[in-house]
Amino acid sequence: METITIPMVDDFHLHLRQGDMAKQVAPMVAEGGVDRCVVMPNTTPMITTTEQAMAYRSELQSVAPETELLMTLYLHSDLTVDEIEKAAKNAVFGVKCYPRGVTTNSASGVEDLSAYAHIFEAMQKIGLPLLIHGEVPSNSSLDICIMNAEEKFLPELERLHSKFPGLRIVLEHATTRAAIECVKGLGENVAATITLHHLELTIDDWVVNPHNYCKPVAKYPHDRDAIRAIVSSGHPRFFFGSDSAPHPQDTKEKIPSRAGVFTTPILLPALADCFDRLGCLDKLKDFTSTFGAQFHRLPPTDKTLTLAREEWIVPKIYGQVVPLFAGKKLNWKIVEKS
Amino acid sequence: METITIPMVDDFHLHLRQGDMAKQVAPMVAEGGVDRCVVMPNTTPMITTTEQAMAYRSELQSVAPETELLMTLYLHSDLTVDEIEKAAKNAVFGVKCYPRGVTTNSASGVEDLSAYAHIFEAMQKIGLPLLIHGEVPSNSSLDICIMNAEEKFLPELERLHSKFPGLRIVLEHATTRAAIECVKGLGENVAATITLHHLELTIDDWVVNPHNYCKPVAKYPHDRDAIRAIVSSGHPRFFFGSDSAPHPQDTKEKIPSRAGVFTTPILLPALADCFDRLGCLDKLKDFTSTFGAQFHRLPPTDKTLTLAREEWIVPKIYGQVVPLFAGKKLNWKIVEKS
Repeated sequence: METITIPMVDDFHLHLRQGDMAKQVAPMVAEGGVDRCVVMPNTTPMITTTEQAMAYRSELQSVAPETELLMTLYLHSDLTVDEIEKAAKNAVFGVKCYPRGVTTNSASGVEDLSAYAHIFEAMQKIGLPLLIHGEVPSNSSLDICIMNAEEKFLPELERLHSKFPGLRIVLEHATTRAAIECVKGLGENVAATITLHHLELTIDDWVVNPHNYCKPVAKYPHDRDAIRAIVSSGHPRFFFGSDSAPHPQDTKEKIPSRAGVFTTPILLPALADCFDRLGCLDKLKDFTSTFGAQFHRLPPTDKTLTLAREEWIVPKIYGQVVPLFAGKKLNWKIVEKS
Repeated sequence: METITIPMVDDFHLHLRQGDMAKQVAPMVAEGGVDRCVVMPNTTPMITTTEQAMAYRSELQSVAPETELLMTLYLHSDLTVDEIEKAAKNAVFGVKCYPRGVTTNSASGVEDLSAYAHIFEAMQKIGLPLLIHGEVPSNSSLDICIMNAEEKFLPELERLHSKFPGLRIVLEHATTRAAIECVKGLGENVAATITLHHLELTIDDWVVNPHNYCKPVAKYPHDRDAIRAIVSSGHPRFFFGSDSAPHPQDTKEKIPSRAGVFTTPILLPALADCFDRLGCLDKLKDFTSTFGAQFHRLPPTDKTLTLAREEWIVPKIYGQVVPLFAGKKLNWKIVEKS
């Protein structure tokens, strides 16, 4: 049986929700092959203080004891430099920035990044990374819609990096050729996370299936090709963040559908399947387990995960959430963790 | 009360369906302010012979006695030069070409236009226009998806025109800046129809509402701007074809949604509202009642339609079909036909 063994896997962008949904999905992180994850703060209420982050971690840890949870704060006008310092002292991982109104629970997001210069200054000094949902809100008069909202954000990313060159910035879930080129061209302190679903989908896939619909939306084949190419090339500033975002089936299938693709329980098998098809299975390890940890200066690990080439069918539903590739065959399976 | 009076209105692209749906929507053509319309042949079975076209016209005429129905044939490998000649003699209006698989009932559509040279030759000689759904099928390896399927078709349109410069060709439901520029740049025998919904919507509108979803999909704000600009400029080769395409509510709201926006019963009020907002109400008349008839050499008319500035609310549903702008306020109303 053909197998591959890789180090402990990091998911640098994950939504674990709250309450019953958290109880359901947090234990699936390990099932999908991930041992350490960065947990998003767009809960209700959002996570804006170290205390909230610690309480949220406790809630999640109780249902996912084997998973290492790296917590984040939601960039918001209430956030102070003192809080940033406190967060860093208490092992909060980073700060997440949502532009206002572009995705789930982003109504309190940021309208103008320049208002946060003092926060970015403090983060740069302390070494806390800024994780950015890189889209600008739709605006017809500025020719901005969901298809170019990421590309139109890139000048903002460039400005931010040039003002705070020492601040580590991650452009989350890059979806466009333009974003890949932009991040590639910026310095060693700017990286991007890549999701499983943006490696797999284009607009034609989500138009006919709301379970493939997320923000930023999957775009043109040439965009997907660019994402596949950068990952296949083994570029160290492009690493894995699933943006797995569970919503109950009924809220995905109603009008309008909630944005979010759920991949947590199938991640490593599906990633192995994808990299295998792309002919770059040898690049999987660095993508999932090395590059991100290096960028974020996280300690290496002795733990490993083994995948074997073995067919299985993705369940049509996990609890109340429909996963990516529901009912489809995958060719790789997790066979051992140690 | 502010009113505008325009000549009899032509809808150069309309789906009237069959059976119960036809009984429901055909009478609404007059309700929407249209007196003469070009009826699409993508029925089940499709309309490929003059006899079928005549029978279909009879079926529709019996439920819409006041409407002038111009019938079309579906371009298909069974279609012969003899049939084209017969069609022309029997007042069939034109031939519609669907690329295979791009929209409702297009599974029998055309894969390769060059196979129809003898048909186009005959149509050119006789003066029968070719009406084209100008999209190529999605194909990831060629970077073709629903967002650029029209733009990728344009070289085909240019080739066709250069081979048959005397053939009148209409690019139906133009949705992109690229298509507007292309048609503008071609000779006097190439025109485009413009729908109400592509004057109004962008991708952001149909992503959250399947009743706004049609093929070709509404695209970027700059595409809508280009459509608005050409219409506002009063260009004589851009005229009205609604592509109103009713589907029962449940088939629009299921996964995947059927492609088609239903506008028949609200057309002239909504068009007046739109042109009013765009500041080009003086251009409405030529767009709906003059340019298309001139291009197609149809006789002028003495009939008129009067609209008044008067608020009303679009019904949430007509029979089993949800219209564009369901539940929304429009500022113009049809007050007289004579």
